[in-house]
Amino acid sequence: MNRKKIVTIGGGTGSFTLLSGLKKYNVDISAIVSMVDDGGSTGVLRDELGVLPPGDVRQCLVALSDSSQMLRQLMNYRFEEGGLKGHNFGNLFLSALEKINKGFSKGVEEASQILNVKGDVIPVTNQDTNLFIELKNGKVLNGEDEINHNFEIERIGIKKNYLLPKARANKKAIEKILEADLIVIGPGNYYCSIVPNLLVNGIAGVIRKSKAIVVFNCNLVNKKGHTEKFSLDEYVDSINSYIGSNRIDFVTFNVKKPNKHLIEKYAKEQELLISFDEDKCANRNYRVVRADILSDKKPKYAKSDVLASKRAFIRHDSDKLAKILMMVLELGEYENIIKEII
Amino acid sequence: MNRKKIVTIGGGTGSFTLLSGLKKYNVDISAIVSMVDDGGSTGVLRDELGVLPPGDVRQCLVALSDSSQMLRQLMNYRFEEGGLKGHNFGNLFLSALEKINKGFSKGVEEASQILNVKGDVIPVTNQDTNLFIELKNGKVLNGEDEINHNFEIERIGIKKNYLLPKARANKKAIEKILEADLIVIGPGNYYCSIVPNLLVNGIAGVIRKSKAIVVFNCNLVNKKGHTEKFSLDEYVDSINSYIGSNRIDFVTFNVKKPNKHLIEKYAKEQELLISFDEDKCANRNYRVVRADILSDKKPKYAKSDVLASKRAFIRHDSDKLAKILMMVLELGEYENIIKEII
Repeated sequence: MNRKKIVTIGGGTGSFTLLSGLKKYNVDISAIVSMVDDGGSTGVLRDELGVLPPGDVRQCLVALSDSSQMLRQLMNYRFEEGGLKGHNFGNLFLSALEKINKGFSKGVEEASQILNVKGDVIPVTNQDTNLFIELKNGKVLNGEDEINHNFEIERIGIKKNYLLPKARANKKAIEKILEADLIVIGPGNYYCSIVPNLLVNGIAGVIRKSKAIVVFNCNLVNKKGHTEKFSLDEYVDSINSYIGSNRIDFVTFNVKKPNKHLIEKYAKEQELLISFDEDKCANRNYRVVRADILSDKKPKYAKSDVLASKRAFIRHDSDKLAKILMMVLELGEYENIIKEII
Repeated sequence: MNRKKIVTIGGGTGSFTLLSGLKKYNVDISAIVSMVDDGGSTGVLRDELGVLPPGDVRQCLVALSDSSQMLRQLMNYRFEEGGLKGHNFGNLFLSALEKINKGFSKGVEEASQILNVKGDVIPVTNQDTNLFIELKNGKVLNGEDEINHNFEIERIGIKKNYLLPKARANKKAIEKILEADLIVIGPGNYYCSIVPNLLVNGIAGVIRKSKAIVVFNCNLVNKKGHTEKFSLDEYVDSINSYIGSNRIDFVTFNVKKPNKHLIEKYAKEQELLISFDEDKCANRNYRVVRADILSDKKPKYAKSDVLASKRAFIRHDSDKLAKILMMVLELGEYENIIKEII
């Protein structure tokens, strides 16, 4: 059997959404996951236990898990009281497995067994590293959490973003990218989840070398102070610059308008829908798949997860997104949809 | 198929040992578990999260689990650093499941599914209760942990031990005891794990009513300040008094001497081998199964588990103990061993 090989690159809720859809197809999925989270429960565990950040990996494991609804719910459970307050159970699970197995990747493999995960979840690096952004005014933003909550990045401009200590790519990530038929980048927090993967030594190089189709899932809304003014083509130019070549073949772009009320709510937070001006991009060397990939389901979150319930109303639909990606992967079988690719 | 029904009553390491042996037989096991632990990780979780004590239940679940060695190891993992220091992962697992399922017993059922548990682990009560001992000098010992670490109980004498608030037996515990072919009490910490089960309203009554054979697994060594002077017959008299009738049919008693070095080591801590004087018990209404039920394996414990590694060198062998119990259950098949019952 010759199953197609899909590699996803990202982290956080974006990867969760993407993988939840892809896992319904008979494909070989490898999820490469950002490893720079240092906020919340994950940050405390890194500081106190000296473990690698479990949060993003956990979300991918849960997305690809075929275990019971209860076990998946447990992995997302967050303690609400006492000394454990704010700790996510799944993060504790991964940290304990890292300790027992004396290594994060081995711990993730064991977690995959326990959670009956279909596919591979691969930390982009096994090294303990942190994300930094040096702004054009000389200020250095120290760590993913600080970067996530700084809203002057776009106004001042980025001089350089980098990892310290420098991090080598996980060997397995390299292998999977080289074997891939399709590489899917995003959706996700651009500077905090997407770009940090491309800063790991070795990742950009093998994406350039890979023969895979490369798709970029453009976010639905821009992030205040980070990508407020980005249009679709600027995302692609930026991603390509981190990869080091015009490697993006396809971009998925949502055309379904969210309801007006939601758009206004987001706008109040300086989060605007991403724009795409076809004329401006006449000479682009990538194709844009315009489709309805918007979720119309109400998101379910734990009450305690304030941030998620506030932010995730305009979001991708797992199934719609996966369907488009499968179409890109097997263009021949979907000729009737190709007309929608511009 | 008419599998024999065994109910065990106890808690802690004693139940772990017992159940680890019994689960190898094709019998229907229900482990009724003490719910008064309030020390260590369990105590913190009770205080901070308002959950019921998970520690004893966890040990029984792990003993009866058919899941991977890794998952079982994970359930016994104890965090060693930071704010999580001292917390046992399995306790957090049970507490999170209790929270998600809004009830301890439902959480235990879900845990049993996840851990692929063969048999039922049944909290003796679903009520949040605590153990008290009123001594003959009027002093009241408040809680299992305080009782466990008080070494004057035997010298001063117990006026009354009781639960507060009063606790009703779990309905399932009642059912299982009434259906049982064999009820096995102990081994375990006498006042902290064994007796507290019998203090729950309804338990003693159904043991009296049950048609099961009742076996008491006598401990191997006495506990300093608690049962230092107890001989086998005094244990039986005491247990029978909590049950409210001479319900014990058999007592297992170890005849294999531990090595001299170990005996001396224990003696320094006022922990002496339990004695049995046959002549003194000429008129007893129970039978004593004398056998080698001593473990000759070195116990494996996490380095951090200081107490366990110090104390558990003289302990029951799971397999030897289970074999004796199966013999008692099916006396007819084991006639050649019956001569050893005195």
